[in-house]
Amino acid sequence: MNVSSVKTVAHSALARYDQVRAHTERLAAPLTPEDQTVQSMPDVSPTKWHRAHVTWFFETFVLADQEPDFAPFQDKYWFLFNSYYEAIGPRYSRPMRGVISRPGAHDVADYRSNVDDRMRDLLDRVDDGTFTKLAPIVELGFHHEQQHQELLLMDIKHVLSLNPLQPVYAGRPAPPGDPGPMGWVDVAGGLVEIGHSGDTSEPGFCFDNELPRHQQWLEPYRLADRLVTNGEWLEFIADGGYQRPALWLSDGWGKVQAEEWTAPAYWSQVDGQWFEHTLHGTWPVDPSLPACHVSHYEADAFATWAGKRLPTEAEWEHAARDHEVEGNLADLESFHPRVAGAPDGRLRQLFGDCWEWTSSAYLPYPGFQVPDGAIGEYNGKFMSGQMVLRGGCALTPPGHARSSYRNFFPAGARWPVTGVRLADGGAPA
Amino acid sequence: MNVSSVKTVAHSALARYDQVRAHTERLAAPLTPEDQTVQSMPDVSPTKWHRAHVTWFFETFVLADQEPDFAPFQDKYWFLFNSYYEAIGPRYSRPMRGVISRPGAHDVADYRSNVDDRMRDLLDRVDDGTFTKLAPIVELGFHHEQQHQELLLMDIKHVLSLNPLQPVYAGRPAPPGDPGPMGWVDVAGGLVEIGHSGDTSEPGFCFDNELPRHQQWLEPYRLADRLVTNGEWLEFIADGGYQRPALWLSDGWGKVQAEEWTAPAYWSQVDGQWFEHTLHGTWPVDPSLPACHVSHYEADAFATWAGKRLPTEAEWEHAARDHEVEGNLADLESFHPRVAGAPDGRLRQLFGDCWEWTSSAYLPYPGFQVPDGAIGEYNGKFMSGQMVLRGGCALTPPGHARSSYRNFFPAGARWPVTGVRLADGGAPA
Amino acid sequence: MNVSSVKTVAHSALARYDQVRAHTERLAAPLTPEDQTVQSMPDVSPTKWHRAHVTWFFETFVLADQEPDFAPFQDKYWFLFNSYYEAIGPRYSRPMRGVISRPGAHDVADYRSNVDDRMRDLLDRVDDGTFTKLAPIVELGFHHEQQHQELLLMDIKHVLSLNPLQPVYAGRPAPPGDPGPMGWVDVAGGLVEIGHSGDTSEPGFCFDNELPRHQQWLEPYRLADRLVTNGEWLEFIADGGYQRPALWLSDGWGKVQAEEWTAPAYWSQVDGQWFEHTLHGTWPVDPSLPACHVSHYEADAFATWAGKRLPTEAEWEHAARDHEVEGNLADLESFHPRVAGAPDGRLRQLFGDCWEWTSSAYLPYPGFQVPDGAIGEYNGKFMSGQMVLRGGCALTPPGHARSSYRNFFPAGARWPVTGVRLADGGAPA
Amino acid sequence: MNVSSVKTVAHSALARYDQVRAHTERLAAPLTPEDQTVQSMPDVSPTKWHRAHVTWFFETFVLADQEPDFAPFQDKYWFLFNSYYEAIGPRYSRPMRGVISRPGAHDVADYRSNVDDRMRDLLDRVDDGTFTKLAPIVELGFHHEQQHQELLLMDIKHVLSLNPLQPVYAGRPAPPGDPGPMGWVDVAGGLVEIGHSGDTSEPGFCFDNELPRHQQWLEPYRLADRLVTNGEWLEFIADGGYQRPALWLSDGWGKVQAEEWTAPAYWSQVDGQWFEHTLHGTWPVDPSLPACHVSHYEADAFATWAGKRLPTEAEWEHAARDHEVEGNLADLESFHPRVAGAPDGRLRQLFGDCWEWTSSAYLPYPGFQVPDGAIGEYNGKFMSGQMVLRGGCALTPPGHARSSYRNFFPAGARWPVTGVRLADGGAPA
Repeated sequence: MNVSSVKTVAHSALARYDQVRAHTERLAAPLTPEDQTVQSMPDVSPTKWHRAHVTWFFETFVLADQEPDFAPFQDKYWFLFNSYYEAIGPRYSRPMRGVISRPGAHDVADYRSNVDDRMRDLLDRVDDGTFTKLAPIVELGFHHEQQHQELLLMDIKHVLSLNPLQPVYAGRPAPPGDPGPMGWVDVAGGLVEIGHSGDTSEPGFCFDNELPRHQQWLEPYRLADRLVTNGEWLEFIADGGYQRPALWLSDGWGKVQAEEWTAPAYWSQVDGQWFEHTLHGTWPVDPSLPACHVSHYEADAFATWAGKRLPTEAEWEHAARDHEVEGNLADLESFHPRVAGAPDGRLRQLFGDCWEWTSSAYLPYPGFQVPDGAIGEYNGKFMSGQMVLRGGCALTPPGHARSSYRNFFPAGARWPVTGVRLADGGAPA
Repeated sequence: MNVSSVKTVAHSALARYDQVRAHTERLAAPLTPEDQTVQSMPDVSPTKWHRAHVTWFFETFVLADQEPDFAPFQDKYWFLFNSYYEAIGPRYSRPMRGVISRPGAHDVADYRSNVDDRMRDLLDRVDDGTFTKLAPIVELGFHHEQQHQELLLMDIKHVLSLNPLQPVYAGRPAPPGDPGPMGWVDVAGGLVEIGHSGDTSEPGFCFDNELPRHQQWLEPYRLADRLVTNGEWLEFIADGGYQRPALWLSDGWGKVQAEEWTAPAYWSQVDGQWFEHTLHGTWPVDPSLPACHVSHYEADAFATWAGKRLPTEAEWEHAARDHEVEGNLADLESFHPRVAGAPDGRLRQLFGDCWEWTSSAYLPYPGFQVPDGAIGEYNGKFMSGQMVLRGGCALTPPGHARSSYRNFFPAGARWPVTGVRLADGGAPA
Repeated sequence: MNVSSVKTVAHSALARYDQVRAHTERLAAPLTPEDQTVQSMPDVSPTKWHRAHVTWFFETFVLADQEPDFAPFQDKYWFLFNSYYEAIGPRYSRPMRGVISRPGAHDVADYRSNVDDRMRDLLDRVDDGTFTKLAPIVELGFHHEQQHQELLLMDIKHVLSLNPLQPVYAGRPAPPGDPGPMGWVDVAGGLVEIGHSGDTSEPGFCFDNELPRHQQWLEPYRLADRLVTNGEWLEFIADGGYQRPALWLSDGWGKVQAEEWTAPAYWSQVDGQWFEHTLHGTWPVDPSLPACHVSHYEADAFATWAGKRLPTEAEWEHAARDHEVEGNLADLESFHPRVAGAPDGRLRQLFGDCWEWTSSAYLPYPGFQVPDGAIGEYNGKFMSGQMVLRGGCALTPPGHARSSYRNFFPAGARWPVTGVRLADGGAPA
Repeated sequence: MNVSSVKTVAHSALARYDQVRAHTERLAAPLTPEDQTVQSMPDVSPTKWHRAHVTWFFETFVLADQEPDFAPFQDKYWFLFNSYYEAIGPRYSRPMRGVISRPGAHDVADYRSNVDDRMRDLLDRVDDGTFTKLAPIVELGFHHEQQHQELLLMDIKHVLSLNPLQPVYAGRPAPPGDPGPMGWVDVAGGLVEIGHSGDTSEPGFCFDNELPRHQQWLEPYRLADRLVTNGEWLEFIADGGYQRPALWLSDGWGKVQAEEWTAPAYWSQVDGQWFEHTLHGTWPVDPSLPACHVSHYEADAFATWAGKRLPTEAEWEHAARDHEVEGNLADLESFHPRVAGAPDGRLRQLFGDCWEWTSSAYLPYPGFQVPDGAIGEYNGKFMSGQMVLRGGCALTPPGHARSSYRNFFPAGARWPVTGVRLADGGAPA
């Protein structure tokens, strides 16, 4: 690589930096300082915390190593905006993030601005040797910020849902449509390869948890060609889906009773009519749209009720590998799943719309290596007690979805944008 | 009463209205919209909630009755800003007040402005017959708003205390001084009268819980002539005060262990030096200042350690009756207890500085009557499980303290500005 | 006092010792080892724990001081059977008493037997000087054991109530009867004396919390001449008593909602008919019997609904002073309140049947002194957060009730045998 | 199958029935009625509950179908002793099992006796057609009772551990020995078969969760030839194992802090010396014995510290398949893991001693089918939120261990007898 091409690459990193950072601010723009302050439950973080934390990431993992006379913008931010990196030092208690009124939304803007200036300065002056070393962590910073862009929207959706004034964030209802009946796509299986190659044979970024590529045996199986719809979910409800323990995992049935679930999260019933809270307001439930905001337990119970099952993550990835990554992602600014397109014999709605629950627990791939240093805490330590989801949702930034991407949430989580694709077959002959 | 004098009175009510309302806004002025949004624990309410709730009080209990075509400023505010009046209808869950980002601080200003206009209009045009009927509830509205002015400050003190950035609200440290040794004032006792007369024989407002005036027998007793100081509290700590169960009520000792109390609330120790969080910043503990932010349990344990006891509310009131109501109240804007003045043989620091824990449970006086209607919920239903405090504190608005005033908090509360005056004697001969 | 009379007194203490101790064992006799092991909630202690704890009391407070070569029967019992005496050393966690399977019921019998032998030996050989010193603590041990006899029955009632097999302890339903309408008895009041004299002017034992006798001013008042009946309580229920917040103290209404109270404890409804769990089985609610197992909150709400109030403890004691202590106490072995006798113009059911909630918080009398040493923990440290009850119940041993006796429980307690006597008047003229 | 051979088989079922049932009673024999009543935490069941529940299983799933005029021994037992079968009807709350004093230990013996008579009668008179239909559920009943024999011991170990008297159940310390250094056994991997055949090609019983046999790809790997010892665990502790978050899964680190783990369960430190509570008393920790009573989190952290990992369940099963099922199981009545035998180049301690944590979540095998009816609740509904363990422990009845057996517990469980075998390799080439 000659000097000029490295410069080009550093410049393109700078352009990408500006683009990613600006997108975060665009997402926060419709929100008042008060909106940005609230933490509505322990899983949710305030908007201004997200904005500050992704900034802290660049300051901590890039600037602290690269600036000759590095000093944090504010000593206390080092503590306040560390999410979970034990190696960095003590950190502020997560469930108390909503108690921190200061720094305020404007102070966070100042913080962002300061770090942006320093990052631009760094990327502008960096020599090629350093940039080569730097590039992976900067790239990780982009994808980290994109993850938080998605979380920021999921979180503010929860915050606004609890407000009796029913505030609207942005967006508008999808145009009506007909997803047609659920079709099925057969997949042959065999000894297949799963995971990202992690090298130049496969372009683009991946997280450590997608590595290494490895072999897995799959019996022949088939996948539904679209997501389960609200209409189908209403049938499940009408058929006693939330009242029949035989359909449920034991822990799921415990949750149904303890939290009195009778429908997906964000659904409410007024005079016999179901309504759904969305980022663009509260609307009557549209039967043609994908069902979303269901837990893994609900997804599993639905599949049992339907006489099917959830796909494994390997089945999903193997079937998705040859599909182009396109769909209802955050660049469309619908901020909600939309009606599936016309059937075409292939898998529809693979990317975008709803993260799809799989039947796979989130565990390390065979040969998985935890990276050295604080960055090693990025993924590995969460490989316990969670389930894998695949494909992305309507809040996922484009460029942040791919067939090998492994998202994960606890089986009871309902505030992410999650839906269901059914699977069948897969038994040994 | 002739027309012109009623008009005068209505006009003076208007002037008082403007004054009380303006004071609330002045107290909120140093706070950002984010500060005003946070609820740091269930007992605390957000600043903007206080500002809206006291407005709701006038809208609900005055305007709704008086405006011919009354409509609430916002339907949902009716629900959001009802504190605890069951008779008014369902109300928003108290521990969730910090989840409500909207209405924001500016929206609340609009609400206040709207109700102010309507109240001014009402007080301006009201006829004398109506005003006579109206005056008690308007007057109650003033005192209600003053209570919340004090709470607003206690609450924001708690909010800011949890912020690692240690934000300052306002005020400055008291000038140094020497309170001198604790002196004692003897009181004869006998068959004394307790409570407010509730009629023209005694000028000024009282709450229903100060009624009726009644007789009570007191043996001769004596009271300390000033509050317990930080210096004395440090001796208590040094003598194992927080480690010796024999000094404590059983419930109090349970709290000491469960919440790991080792000093008053807002105290923290750094390198062996005690610091105190105040509204004007975090400062080294000053031994000459009154000890404050102690629970009833701590007050009782301190008294036991000192070989004394807490006064009953009757003892306090009887001794305080002839003292002028003056002291370190909120108009001094110190926002913190100050050093006791020079000894003069009388009781010092009776009003202002710290609310003083008594040994009396908060119970109805003999013959207490709950008023009819929603206003009947103002005091009576809380006469259970709380202890009486007397005298006012540095956050109490002037005009809101008097010898018969009965404040009350649960025995474990530490976020109010509470201190200790010792008592002795009082046993039957 | 000459030698022979002291001997007589020591011998009569021995006779009393044997009688009290035997009564405890008689109460435990109908219970299996398994029954005696269960702790059904933190407030309840297992039967065998009660049997051992009262034994520990004599061993700790009498034998440890008197036996020249004292050694505990079992070192670990010292720790296991200390209820709450911090001065004695660490103690076993109260809510974990049900986890201790050993010592078993038979081991506890051995412990009792051993301490009984040593106590008999001591009382037999004691010289008169020592006995004079010893008598108060031995006497306290008798009354302590009687308190636990009552608690043992209250506790086992709760244990058995949770068993779907509906086991019966003992006793049989009261004969039917008609309590007649509620009558009223007027009391003049004035400057009255409250509390036990604590000296020879008044025969018999009292606890420290009944001291000192002191003056209190009472306005004229009147008391209902019998307890509120189940029939009256059914009217309260039918009139929406458990659904109308306006009738309730704020904390009480919180309990109604949190614990879903719709009737007294131990009541259950089957096909529209109310049943009551008692120590002699589960029976249809008898309208002529006193309502029992109601909390202070329910008692207060009932009184509000009836347009009356609860008596203060001073009103109760003053009115009860001249009545003979007789009634439905544990020697009748009904183990349940019975129908009031025929009206006779005086207060009926004063002693026995149900402990009667007063409106008085449990606080020290003016001049109350905590005794020195561990025994000082007997009463004083509980004078916080509880309400006073008067009169005794159907589980109270005879000899353990008197007009000055102050029982106390938290306002939400429902497992003790508690009922309601209404009061009226008492307001200043 | 001709008549006489069916009779033989039914007779041998009867013999096996008597043997299994008698073993349960033998295990309960050292326990007092009080011991058998206690539930020391929600996961633990009282001994007499275990004894009754396994009896209920035969009554419900065999006798209810087979007896012409079936009536339950006691109606309420139907409710009390249903563990988790929703299809059978409502059931008694699990965490309240310790509240049920009756039926007592002797009543349960009567229940067992009654059902034994009826089962013997049935197995004696059954015709061959019926027996063929009946055999699988009777066989399941045997294995079900064996599972509870193991649980009974794990549970009573927990109960006795909380008793300050340190009661001993039975057994004696293992003879001393030297397990030698940890060796390694290489396994080739490839496309292997996992799971029980479920047909006559493989003799003996299996649970539904071991089905179906299916293919899985394994890269070459190696397994430690023995369990991790207490001595090795002491090194982990000494090296800060419980203080270094970098070694732990995030949820595990949360548990370490919340529950203040500093060593395996049942370990306690007195004057710097570690002791271990066992069923045969409390003894100094023996470094040569296997470490046990560690959670999955601790097992994982230990493996990370050691630079290794836990095996997958497939790796374990594939490596164990050709080993004879023999080891320190419950028939040896050691009731505690013992020192590994001399190294012999093969895997030691595969069966017995400690259940071995794997890195595999407990999920259905590809093609797993839930059986119809209430029996379908046996395993499938628990396939969520738990980790697989393999091999059996010192409390496992012989005949209840096999290479395909899948045991499972939540990752935080420490009261089962669980230990650690390390793995290495397994990464794709």
